[in-house]
Amino acid sequence: MTTPALQQQPTPERFFNAINAYELTEAIKSAVELEIFTAIAEANTTSAMIAKRCEAAERGVRILCDFLTIHCFLIKEGAHYALAPDSALFLNRHSPAYVGTATEFLLTPWLRECHAQLTEAVRRGGTALSAGMLEPENPDWVKFANGMMPLMQRPSEMIAAELRKGGEAHKVLDIAACHGIFGISVAKQNPSAHIYASDWKNVLEVAQKNAKAMGVGDRYHLLPGSAFETDFGIGYDLALITNFLHAFDPPTCATLMRKVHVALNPGGRVAIAEFVPNADRVSPPTAAAFSLMMLAATPSGDAYTFAELENISKDAGFARVELAAQEIGINRLVIAYR
Amino acid sequence: MTTPALQQQPTPERFFNAINAYELTEAIKSAVELEIFTAIAEANTTSAMIAKRCEAAERGVRILCDFLTIHCFLIKEGAHYALAPDSALFLNRHSPAYVGTATEFLLTPWLRECHAQLTEAVRRGGTALSAGMLEPENPDWVKFANGMMPLMQRPSEMIAAELRKGGEAHKVLDIAACHGIFGISVAKQNPSAHIYASDWKNVLEVAQKNAKAMGVGDRYHLLPGSAFETDFGIGYDLALITNFLHAFDPPTCATLMRKVHVALNPGGRVAIAEFVPNADRVSPPTAAAFSLMMLAATPSGDAYTFAELENISKDAGFARVELAAQEIGINRLVIAYR
Repeated sequence: MTTPALQQQPTPERFFNAINAYELTEAIKSAVELEIFTAIAEANTTSAMIAKRCEAAERGVRILCDFLTIHCFLIKEGAHYALAPDSALFLNRHSPAYVGTATEFLLTPWLRECHAQLTEAVRRGGTALSAGMLEPENPDWVKFANGMMPLMQRPSEMIAAELRKGGEAHKVLDIAACHGIFGISVAKQNPSAHIYASDWKNVLEVAQKNAKAMGVGDRYHLLPGSAFETDFGIGYDLALITNFLHAFDPPTCATLMRKVHVALNPGGRVAIAEFVPNADRVSPPTAAAFSLMMLAATPSGDAYTFAELENISKDAGFARVELAAQEIGINRLVIAYR
Repeated sequence: MTTPALQQQPTPERFFNAINAYELTEAIKSAVELEIFTAIAEANTTSAMIAKRCEAAERGVRILCDFLTIHCFLIKEGAHYALAPDSALFLNRHSPAYVGTATEFLLTPWLRECHAQLTEAVRRGGTALSAGMLEPENPDWVKFANGMMPLMQRPSEMIAAELRKGGEAHKVLDIAACHGIFGISVAKQNPSAHIYASDWKNVLEVAQKNAKAMGVGDRYHLLPGSAFETDFGIGYDLALITNFLHAFDPPTCATLMRKVHVALNPGGRVAIAEFVPNADRVSPPTAAAFSLMMLAATPSGDAYTFAELENISKDAGFARVELAAQEIGINRLVIAYR
């Protein structure tokens, strides 16, 4: 990102590039669909070799690979392409950290349409579309659960490790469990812990399948239905709320947090993984920018600052709220103590 | 743009941001539609003031303005927004250099659809859609002519000044004249020059209107029809081919250049304004990236290197080809001499 102050003379170049920014979205999507990164990982390094492996035209591959090089996803030396380090780890289908599956949800037509109507969303102060994603049993959340797990694998392990430092967990509530990976990682690092996963019934089928596959199925329990209505029970020492509060306004968040407060034992903790911008709301860039996604896609969601999450938690009765020092992938970890 | 080599540890953050790059397209488009930049130029500096001026929700404006700040189109200090220097010059409707009108063409649905089918374009090595833009009298070119002139005003003056150094022009052929600004700028800097503008009939109506408005209507002549079929006549000392060759493959470009060669007097020049990437095809970024636009939108167009443009010109009979030192906005200027 260039800062305007560094420019010698104003040019419309940044405007031109910003208007065409959607080309990068399409280029990454196409590269994932055609398995360009995987082809290069398999030692196909020229456009001719990649084209053969990907069943595409050499000319098309050459232009796409040059574009990906311009955006630093590839490295070009002479006529040979190589993978940038993060492309090698996350975009090669043979890598255990492959995240290419996330494109299906992140670019679901409904989400694209929300942004196509961004002007109306700015006018209204909330999504121009109907509740959509927040409706019960919405199949897009099954797509999300299937597609986003790889992106969250490493963050979930980091969060589980951070929480483990504060003591062993025995009964864990995982709200908006989704693919289940956050609760599953806690289960793996806390051998006696039982996980109670809350989400829509169709989504929990994905989480349960993952829990079984990862060897914690016998300690995995389902709480199907809306997190705002389901009876969580009591006696939890840990609750997880991962990338969920951003979909709601602060009073709604506080309502949920109050419900969690009741379910926790004294001394119990809530781990909130979220996009947490600084107080200026414009840094760090990825967390701060997430606010626009919520404007486009939800009636009143937002990326909340730590002060806002602290207020929400204290409104709900929590005694103390902390921001973990380490970044967790593109999220931060906030811990509220009952 | 961060270079992968600088990253401490690979994270999927760049992938996540690249997939969501289309949000910047939509944000700039919405800001132009809502006149956010113009509102700030009019001294509305808080989200409440901007919201009132733009008839939008304060919450929506705050989130959009923060997003524009993250991408350096605005500057935020406390609760106040200001325009970055290039936003002030190009995105304030009251500025004579306002380029907001370009969004209508740059984001025309046909062009978006071309990119939505980028995977198929890579497979084919050319646009997945029918010829579309290249069809006679396509109304999108009228949109282009109306919308893009402000973006090309300053570059056209720079090109005319550069060409003036090589001598006065008397009879000038302007191929793919579009809004006409390139030929009009030459006419303004060469008081005896007559401009012969070639483009589709419906597009030339825009150029002629602009020529009249800018005081050169009496020296402005129309050559309606395809540049490949129209009889240009002879006796030209200068021809302009601005952002046109990129739509065609090299043999087709050479065919057109041969036709221009015949129309020029001995010693005559062709000025080619183009996106000209370096020989590595991945720098400078804006020129090199334009190749993807051509892959998506044309059967066989490309952003040509200087060596390629030189070969095309020499194939067509030109004796000498030069690359002007100075960048012309997002273009470079190549001059071929008969």
